[in-house]
Amino acid sequence: MTILSAFPITPTNADGQVDLGALRTLLQPLVAAGVGSIGLLGSTGTYPFLARHQRRRAVEAAVEAVAGRLPVLVGVGALRTDEAVRMAQDAKGAGAEAGLLAAMSYTPLTEDEVFVHCETVARESGLPLCLYDNPGTTHFRFTPALIGRLARVPGIVAIKSPAPEPDGAAEHIAALRAVVPAGFSLGYSGDWNAVAALLAGGEAWYSVIAGLFPHTALAIVRAVEAGDAAEARRLDARLKPLWDLFRTYSSLRVVYACADLLGLCRAEPPRPILPLGGEARQRVADTLAALELG
Amino acid sequence: MTILSAFPITPTNADGQVDLGALRTLLQPLVAAGVGSIGLLGSTGTYPFLARHQRRRAVEAAVEAVAGRLPVLVGVGALRTDEAVRMAQDAKGAGAEAGLLAAMSYTPLTEDEVFVHCETVARESGLPLCLYDNPGTTHFRFTPALIGRLARVPGIVAIKSPAPEPDGAAEHIAALRAVVPAGFSLGYSGDWNAVAALLAGGEAWYSVIAGLFPHTALAIVRAVEAGDAAEARRLDARLKPLWDLFRTYSSLRVVYACADLLGLCRAEPPRPILPLGGEARQRVADTLAALELG
Repeated sequence: MTILSAFPITPTNADGQVDLGALRTLLQPLVAAGVGSIGLLGSTGTYPFLARHQRRRAVEAAVEAVAGRLPVLVGVGALRTDEAVRMAQDAKGAGAEAGLLAAMSYTPLTEDEVFVHCETVARESGLPLCLYDNPGTTHFRFTPALIGRLARVPGIVAIKSPAPEPDGAAEHIAALRAVVPAGFSLGYSGDWNAVAALLAGGEAWYSVIAGLFPHTALAIVRAVEAGDAAEARRLDARLKPLWDLFRTYSSLRVVYACADLLGLCRAEPPRPILPLGGEARQRVADTLAALELG
Repeated sequence: MTILSAFPITPTNADGQVDLGALRTLLQPLVAAGVGSIGLLGSTGTYPFLARHQRRRAVEAAVEAVAGRLPVLVGVGALRTDEAVRMAQDAKGAGAEAGLLAAMSYTPLTEDEVFVHCETVARESGLPLCLYDNPGTTHFRFTPALIGRLARVPGIVAIKSPAPEPDGAAEHIAALRAVVPAGFSLGYSGDWNAVAALLAGGEAWYSVIAGLFPHTALAIVRAVEAGDAAEARRLDARLKPLWDLFRTYSSLRVVYACADLLGLCRAEPPRPILPLGGEARQRVADTLAALELG
């Protein structure tokens, strides 16, 4: 079984107030398409840019919109441990199924510091946690040794790793499988390399495109589940122009431009991040027109 | 003229509430020693871990404690542009002389994004700004081209760069001097390489040890100002055991351990950062005992 977790943007006004109506508009087609879970307030959902009460409003609205039809995972990362605990408590109180806990850092953190941080959030919140390994934004990398320690902490049930380059996928998953207990879920993000990781045995795809184009992502996941690697690779290869944009401009900036070009909501990322303009925006528009995403 | 700016820690309780009495206790000897300015709420002052109202309390207490005897520079960085604007407005309202603006990031930022961010904070706050280039924590590096653009923005008056390795100091300062207007201040942080940067013409030392041992740092600055490079290098070389600790454990963790060992205040860094223990703490204690810092 391969879980597709869809990571939408979190529409806000310029002051960081969440537009709950627009959020519902983005979530409704994901639920209707039948994704496996919603990854609310991920990096694409700009959680580090949103205040605690705004995050809580977003979780409440999402849980209400989803109405029990699928689980809502919620980004609960924060620079301070006590803040991450509160975010996780809030998410649990609002009905989230699990928390996504990134090792956000300013002062570079040691392995022991991240271990205590994650253990504390798990213990004090009681919310099941998926570790969120995202060194491109947090500048902390979970080693297999640390993952092995954390996978034995009660309440830490999964990890979302950045998908390695395709020829390293099997080795990556074997290295993690060797250190985690049975039942601990190994999943991947980084859409452009995710298919190889799923074919190598990854159990979940934490997907940015699924947050906007759930059918496109589900078609790939269904091919993987059917054991049709050739079809999964073909569907993935078709998306190469989109993956190239993700690598060049970041998936966050590209999906914001997509949502804006499609007229789905007011879609400007939080400043200092600027909306794509000029040639970049045109490239996104051309790619949208060529690929027929859905 | 070489300015010594002293960067103290910001003592807080475990919840992040600033201990104003302990902060005054730390500031008083800096003022008495005659440092050139206070660098409040720098990275050593854990600004990213403190809420807006806690930062404002710290600035108000520092400005009151310093009582006009020297300028107070205040870290005003934040992940969101509008938050950084508010931090700078707060600092100005509380009587700070200038703001230290780091390019804090989660999603990696482009040069244009950081340009607009800094320009917006300068324009909307009216607080003179020192750019705070600290790639080890922000994961953004100001290029000379960007520094040249920003140095022409009204209200952006200085930059604090990480001091390069000693044999690159002259080249670094020449590269920046070539792109900034006359009067724009070029200063350095990173205590272990700062002396070479000052001898090469750096105008300010943004110093962590000066936040705890002002006389030790002032002796070096006075040797630089007297043109006695040999004496400056001798005093600097004497501190090598301390610089080794800074490089190994980070200056932040080491000065917290120093403040704690010296009994100056409750000195635990904000979690997830853990206080140094065991062998690391013993090494700091041994170094303190051997070096006679003041």
